[in-house]
Amino acid sequence: MQDTHISLAHGNGGRLMRELINELFAPHLANEFLDTNVDAACIPLQADHDVFVTTDGFTVKPLEFPGGDIGSLAVHGTVNDLSVAGAVPKYLTVNAYIEEGLEIAQLERIVKSLAAAAAQANVSVVAGDTKVVARGEGGGLYLATTGIGLRRPGIRLGLAEVAIDDVMLVSGTVGDHGTAVMLAREQFGLRGDLKSDSASVLPIAQALLDVPGLRFMRDPTRGGLASVANEVVQATGRGVRLQQTAIPINEPVQSVCDMLGYDPYYLACEGRLVAIVAAAHAAQALTAMQAAAGGAHASVIGRIENSERPRVVLETELGGERILEELEDDPLPRIC
Amino acid sequence: MQDTHISLAHGNGGRLMRELINELFAPHLANEFLDTNVDAACIPLQADHDVFVTTDGFTVKPLEFPGGDIGSLAVHGTVNDLSVAGAVPKYLTVNAYIEEGLEIAQLERIVKSLAAAAAQANVSVVAGDTKVVARGEGGGLYLATTGIGLRRPGIRLGLAEVAIDDVMLVSGTVGDHGTAVMLAREQFGLRGDLKSDSASVLPIAQALLDVPGLRFMRDPTRGGLASVANEVVQATGRGVRLQQTAIPINEPVQSVCDMLGYDPYYLACEGRLVAIVAAAHAAQALTAMQAAAGGAHASVIGRIENSERPRVVLETELGGERILEELEDDPLPRIC
Repeated sequence: MQDTHISLAHGNGGRLMRELINELFAPHLANEFLDTNVDAACIPLQADHDVFVTTDGFTVKPLEFPGGDIGSLAVHGTVNDLSVAGAVPKYLTVNAYIEEGLEIAQLERIVKSLAAAAAQANVSVVAGDTKVVARGEGGGLYLATTGIGLRRPGIRLGLAEVAIDDVMLVSGTVGDHGTAVMLAREQFGLRGDLKSDSASVLPIAQALLDVPGLRFMRDPTRGGLASVANEVVQATGRGVRLQQTAIPINEPVQSVCDMLGYDPYYLACEGRLVAIVAAAHAAQALTAMQAAAGGAHASVIGRIENSERPRVVLETELGGERILEELEDDPLPRIC
Repeated sequence: MQDTHISLAHGNGGRLMRELINELFAPHLANEFLDTNVDAACIPLQADHDVFVTTDGFTVKPLEFPGGDIGSLAVHGTVNDLSVAGAVPKYLTVNAYIEEGLEIAQLERIVKSLAAAAAQANVSVVAGDTKVVARGEGGGLYLATTGIGLRRPGIRLGLAEVAIDDVMLVSGTVGDHGTAVMLAREQFGLRGDLKSDSASVLPIAQALLDVPGLRFMRDPTRGGLASVANEVVQATGRGVRLQQTAIPINEPVQSVCDMLGYDPYYLACEGRLVAIVAAAHAAQALTAMQAAAGGAHASVIGRIENSERPRVVLETELGGERILEELEDDPLPRIC
């Protein structure tokens, strides 16, 4: 490609758009199912498996941040939504809204990163579309990914399965992604060791599927751990009691939150998994998570309780109680 | 919902986002497969059929225009990409990027229109995602749709099947969508009877599948009929010869193009289908198209020819020849 920056003509259906797709997107994303000359891709599926579909939009700002970028994030987000449904991700579609003026070198870095994350998660990008919007009408780059995955038959998962005394676990530290993106955006100059946790949770989810008594899995993205816990309360009518000291938080994340007045329980993770498991199998679940890639810091963090007034209660270090309310204000727009 | 306009808090993963999804999107889109509380939807597929996937982004401006809006357009665009692949569309995912400040009443009209178009095309929206971007960082509303469809086994379609002397047909008038959106945007005050052709081409595509000698189908969207013809030239190394008098164009579209210097062959259609058929079966194909819903004005418009220098040649009314080059400049950004 001769140009250094995206122009409106890269979106017009003509030569420049063809070059953008064939020279920048297609080479990095190449796989046996992707053909940029067809309207729809044919994908083989296993007939004895359940087919799952999910979709997600990404508007993170800045587009690149410590630990990831919007490309890898888009893959991880969709891979993780399939993973927590118990499915193995197989195929992705990718939509790109590119703002006029975006540097083509940056776009290529992001597409390469997206391709690498897809390869690592063993998913094929089978269809894509690009649109170019005028300068000022887009945030540099927005992505949307739809994922298709397969789940072996006979798996029951969901909030309807959750019962009193079930145990809640998280696969690692919380708040890393939200904190890393916020610092990258605001350029506070205190970045230090902070980086996003953006990653696939598929290995952890697959390990948990072999644990009896697994009720529910979710990835705590927008709104963080506190929002997943509130969702459990909403859907089950039960309370969630969390132990503050059991929730893993990286020290620099805690420091930044203390300094800036953010609450890590509400900050987005992009490579973590929350699981609810029958109490009798909690130890087995913890062992399985800790043995899986990305699960070394997994922890039992709380339990489901009967309650007259079901809420998310955080038992603090000093023995007090704090209510984690449902999120009202937006602490961090464009975090994912 | 109590608010009249979208705020950033509608995208934060908390209460307002839940209300937006549960009170505005979910009621209109409701179907047996859609569950706003799960990460991924389970979709049944017929095991003996080929599964096809496609995706498309939509940034049309204005969001509502004569003959449609971004919601119906997003459904038709994706339904049509599956249709021209010979598949029957079954499931859709929808991504919405909503700009802070968008009027909620307008958003609801668009979601209703999207739902109506999906119902008419007999597709279920099985998953969705909403993101809110800050005022000035989005064009009001962008949508992305991914479609999954099924094709009966044994169908061969594609540009590789195209041979010399094959005949090209179009299912109706060209340039209506592009012209209607341009006029709606520029408020030229000469709107008249002009409206978008935005519609599903599934009935026409399905009718053509029964015609022997069907080689290839495509919907002429961005870049219009001329761009599809150029794509055929690129992929086959053959020329395409079009008869100007045979290409159906609505009179007001022609008038507007004459007046403003646009070329209708390059303007987007959103409810038309271009087919290439073996010459021996052209009459049968034409009859099938004309009998299908939306195909009344179908016409044989040209043929594939052997050529030393393969190009798209338009034989003009007066017996001259004009080359329809591949599109370089963008006549109309944000047309779809």
